[in-house]
Amino acid sequence: MRTITIKPAAITHNLNQVKALAPKSNVLAMVKANAYGHGVAAVLPALQQADGIGVATLREALEARQLGWDKTIGLIEGAFTVDEWQQAIEHDISCVIHHAPQLDWALEQIPPVDSATRMVWIKYNTGMNRLGFNNQTLSSAAKSLHDAGYQLILTTHFANADNQDHPLNAIQIQRFNDMLSTLRQTVSTNIKGSLCNSAGIVNFPEHHHDWVRPGIMLYGSAPVIDQSAYTLNLQPAMEFSAQIIALQTVQAGDAIGYGSRWIAQQDVKTALVSIGYGDGYPRVVNGDAYVSVIDAVNQQRYSCAVIGRVAMDMIVIDVSAVPESSALNSKVILWGDAPHVDEVATHADTIGYELLCRLSVRPNRIQM
Amino acid sequence: MRTITIKPAAITHNLNQVKALAPKSNVLAMVKANAYGHGVAAVLPALQQADGIGVATLREALEARQLGWDKTIGLIEGAFTVDEWQQAIEHDISCVIHHAPQLDWALEQIPPVDSATRMVWIKYNTGMNRLGFNNQTLSSAAKSLHDAGYQLILTTHFANADNQDHPLNAIQIQRFNDMLSTLRQTVSTNIKGSLCNSAGIVNFPEHHHDWVRPGIMLYGSAPVIDQSAYTLNLQPAMEFSAQIIALQTVQAGDAIGYGSRWIAQQDVKTALVSIGYGDGYPRVVNGDAYVSVIDAVNQQRYSCAVIGRVAMDMIVIDVSAVPESSALNSKVILWGDAPHVDEVATHADTIGYELLCRLSVRPNRIQM
Repeated sequence: MRTITIKPAAITHNLNQVKALAPKSNVLAMVKANAYGHGVAAVLPALQQADGIGVATLREALEARQLGWDKTIGLIEGAFTVDEWQQAIEHDISCVIHHAPQLDWALEQIPPVDSATRMVWIKYNTGMNRLGFNNQTLSSAAKSLHDAGYQLILTTHFANADNQDHPLNAIQIQRFNDMLSTLRQTVSTNIKGSLCNSAGIVNFPEHHHDWVRPGIMLYGSAPVIDQSAYTLNLQPAMEFSAQIIALQTVQAGDAIGYGSRWIAQQDVKTALVSIGYGDGYPRVVNGDAYVSVIDAVNQQRYSCAVIGRVAMDMIVIDVSAVPESSALNSKVILWGDAPHVDEVATHADTIGYELLCRLSVRPNRIQM
Repeated sequence: MRTITIKPAAITHNLNQVKALAPKSNVLAMVKANAYGHGVAAVLPALQQADGIGVATLREALEARQLGWDKTIGLIEGAFTVDEWQQAIEHDISCVIHHAPQLDWALEQIPPVDSATRMVWIKYNTGMNRLGFNNQTLSSAAKSLHDAGYQLILTTHFANADNQDHPLNAIQIQRFNDMLSTLRQTVSTNIKGSLCNSAGIVNFPEHHHDWVRPGIMLYGSAPVIDQSAYTLNLQPAMEFSAQIIALQTVQAGDAIGYGSRWIAQQDVKTALVSIGYGDGYPRVVNGDAYVSVIDAVNQQRYSCAVIGRVAMDMIVIDVSAVPESSALNSKVILWGDAPHVDEVATHADTIGYELLCRLSVRPNRIQM
């Protein structure tokens, strides 16, 4: 059975790690993109101790409200239209304001005094160059919002926080801290700051400010390039698994799979696993890709190489090390404790985030 | 709005192309992997003129029955357990039999005479080396099944049918045709044959046999390496689109996005598009990747390069060519008529099949 098993206890554990790293900050837990593929309904109960959640679209915000989340919801790209701004007010969503049209909507339609939409996240472009006001436009936007009665959080986003030594980090931090000081002097001492995503939480403990915004680390992946999930004491919150559905011996010289890319150098015992890119396992993986097989009879664990091209519905693995009498029906872990999704990502020339997000609807979903 | 638009009329058109190419064969239309990501509920009504549908899992088979599909359903990896075999009988599913355990179940529990499960697809490994009986075991398996009252379709799967000149094609065709002749001489003249997937339908018109099994071409992608969807008169059945949500001018020398990988050589007008790998757009694309922007005011179409790293929720594109006054809120086509999903796949070092299958649940889904 193709199965995605979500472990809410791991998410709670990882949230506690965030709190231990940033004890003085509020936590906006990112649950955008269906909670990084984990399923927002499964994840929200594990985040009860977060101060708020972050989403990318109004639809995601409304879904979280429907699921009963009654604390802060931050809409991190803000409203896309004036109609969305009105809906944000209606549902007490706290929006990012990153460009002039959003500023206009906010100044034209001011939410009630007790509305959570009175808190806005004003976005400063410090070097990511995707969105945000620049150093000429931000101050006046902030002043207008403050004068209209909004509570402000100055926010920005790192481009290279995963790589502690990247020179842009210090520049972004400096620009952010300077602007926050300026605003506190010229607009209001009550303006809050939010700088750090997961990587920033780990790499820049001096700059956590009022709100941190952890994402990937809540799900048990490492947000920085020089430490693993294990050294950061993060627990993977997802296990992606399938099953051996057939065994075969392939003769030396025979090729396996589409494109006949993998050729047996000697006779090799192979197993067919009921998983493929139609489920979300990446189609292109290198020769280091492996899975864990949990022997159906003895529950022993074996690392088995993925061989040949990943197909839509199946992969072939080398089960030479697995006792033939007990291999059929064995559970196969694509990612989970081992291999970790970050390892699989390395074999697929990407990052764990993408593998988690790009799962399809086909696998069965359970919680444990 | 992140939107996946499915065009059932295109699927019907593509099915008619299959029928024109293989006029004497029955058509088993592949709808596995949620109809290659298109959504099986949206696709089945467009396939009414197919003779059957093919799925990869029992769950997919039962879903199609629930949606009212009352013709043949072929389960292309067969039952995974004896329990699944029993359910297949219960729901009139026609199964592949590719290894000894499935043969045992079929011989131990024979479906009623009028059951669709009496028709089985016996799988012959002719060179793909994933699954199937070999040339020593197939004949006796076929004889046992025939003697037990089953109607047989001999089937196999090409490893390199997309590449007409690959030497394995002729070998696979020869092995298949030889085995089919042998079975018709030694077991029954009534044994049917099924050899061709989409690529085989296009490249090997002499070998269509009784059932063809089109997949990707139904959805409007080219199944062969030397022809495009356009030259094959196939229509893309999916449009994947989003929207420009902000505009910005990035200064010469500034970097855009994660990793600061893309650096502006001159001042450049950029747009932020509300789509990312959290929706299913591939995270890693090369410098040739582009999207189509449909100007919000004049409905003019512009090709715009994707610049910087694709993020979870957004991408940045170069909108220098788009009139600034009408760019905001413009529709952005990630794939559809142009760029075709096969083009995007080339930019992402994969095939269109994978992009279609690995869409997430986040985009809105509509039909047109």
